[in-house]
Amino acid sequence: MGRVTERRRVLRIRDGATSTRPDTLVAEEPLEIRLNGKPLAITMRTPGDDFALAAGFLVSEGVLARAEEVANIVYCAGATSDGANTYNVVDVRLAPGVPLPDITLERNVYTTSSCGLCGKASLDAVRTAARVPIADQPQFRVTPELLAALPDRLRSAQRVFDRTGGLHAAGLFSPDGELLDLREDVGRHNAVDKLIGRALRSGLLPLSRSMLLVSGRASFELAQKAVMAGIPLLAAVSAPSSLAVDLAAETGLTLVGFLRGGSMNVYAGEERLDLRGRLDQRTDAEPAVPAR
Amino acid sequence: MGRVTERRRVLRIRDGATSTRPDTLVAEEPLEIRLNGKPLAITMRTPGDDFALAAGFLVSEGVLARAEEVANIVYCAGATSDGANTYNVVDVRLAPGVPLPDITLERNVYTTSSCGLCGKASLDAVRTAARVPIADQPQFRVTPELLAALPDRLRSAQRVFDRTGGLHAAGLFSPDGELLDLREDVGRHNAVDKLIGRALRSGLLPLSRSMLLVSGRASFELAQKAVMAGIPLLAAVSAPSSLAVDLAAETGLTLVGFLRGGSMNVYAGEERLDLRGRLDQRTDAEPAVPAR
Repeated sequence: MGRVTERRRVLRIRDGATSTRPDTLVAEEPLEIRLNGKPLAITMRTPGDDFALAAGFLVSEGVLARAEEVANIVYCAGATSDGANTYNVVDVRLAPGVPLPDITLERNVYTTSSCGLCGKASLDAVRTAARVPIADQPQFRVTPELLAALPDRLRSAQRVFDRTGGLHAAGLFSPDGELLDLREDVGRHNAVDKLIGRALRSGLLPLSRSMLLVSGRASFELAQKAVMAGIPLLAAVSAPSSLAVDLAAETGLTLVGFLRGGSMNVYAGEERLDLRGRLDQRTDAEPAVPAR
Repeated sequence: MGRVTERRRVLRIRDGATSTRPDTLVAEEPLEIRLNGKPLAITMRTPGDDFALAAGFLVSEGVLARAEEVANIVYCAGATSDGANTYNVVDVRLAPGVPLPDITLERNVYTTSSCGLCGKASLDAVRTAARVPIADQPQFRVTPELLAALPDRLRSAQRVFDRTGGLHAAGLFSPDGELLDLREDVGRHNAVDKLIGRALRSGLLPLSRSMLLVSGRASFELAQKAVMAGIPLLAAVSAPSSLAVDLAAETGLTLVGFLRGGSMNVYAGEERLDLRGRLDQRTDAEPAVPAR
């Protein structure tokens, strides 16, 4: 697409001196997602991987779970008054027999923030919709050392961040710590939707042998997206929210936060952490630290 | 409300040693915003200032501009099956004669990310709706030194961030750099909506003599919220997006990014920066720096 970044003139002020130069910004444009021709959602996203974004969004919403459920995905022309194709409107057409969700019917609900509730007029529906049996999936275990190495791998694989400072990154890793896929976006939910949508279209869902790492915080919505895609472990460089922790505990998701410099906090699902020998260390170490 | 933070048990892993302790997390709960009894939006927010959040959201959407347009705002009971009041549903009732926006009619559009487009099925509608004559308002000018001091003032006034690491902050400042109001939330758009909603309810809109500082990035949505509230200057600690810059340039909003440690980038509206003497400095300084 070539629209991941854009150039704008900027006035820089540094230590009292000013200069004018072009600056690289992360591109942000609206994407309207339609389902069988009907407008369903608008998200502000970084252009690129739009079909994957739409598909991944529908996975998160419980509409899609397998590649065969999609008949096709197309850009819609005619979204502007002059009929030009803006490449900002995509239509996902479901395969015959796939039920249309009732989020397209009599729903006037939308949201402006890190959400996951979208299209659900009843708050009660949220937790129910997010229940996917992650706990029933074949287990894998990872060591803290393996987890601690992931943020550097994500950062070194990021292509756009250093240029704009405006992108969130999401990476999908194997249980061995191999980076399977990486997406960046101005919206962290979009980056995750793009990852999940690409996996759906490759026939890889549920992602029961993978771990998701996000560059920022772990909100309820990101935890829900992991759960809906069958990803058993979500790690975030920054803090989780209370509801993300609650959802993780309810669904069996392993939730790791503050994954930085060899340290981390495990908020739920610690059975996927291989801590052999560490509990002994803790017992050994504790007397050395004065209790306060 | 007492729900700004919540405590959860966490397994900490530090340098190979583990320990279990309670951790303070930022509270995140869904808030359903109703307009005259009809569900309009759900946002994941940190509880507190919910009436202001609802009012500020409606300012951003162009529904409200003056305190008198609100008849009342109430928490709705009966949102759960047992009829209990969750304090997670608020209803904004408009004063008689205030027109209901058509976003409540036949709109199946919602969004999951940093948005500002919410409820607008037509992408074309966005820029139009955001046009408020900031450029016509009485001007004020600020020095780079005054702007550079704002992030520290915001941080020193933040109460929750240091405990959870999970909150975004938004501060409203006078042209003299005085902190007028500060809100924190798990969603940065909510923090801004809370600020704007409190100002609306205090009869202070449009906020033509104020500046908005946000702790993170400047997205299109945040720029739109500033414009809809009549705030002439938006500063962000981190990067802006391309569309935020475009909107600022179109509407006359001053947009400052990367406001850190005495440095900043001005992306639009530099006429509000008092740069007297600085252009000379630039001319003087440039020969000392080899051109590359």
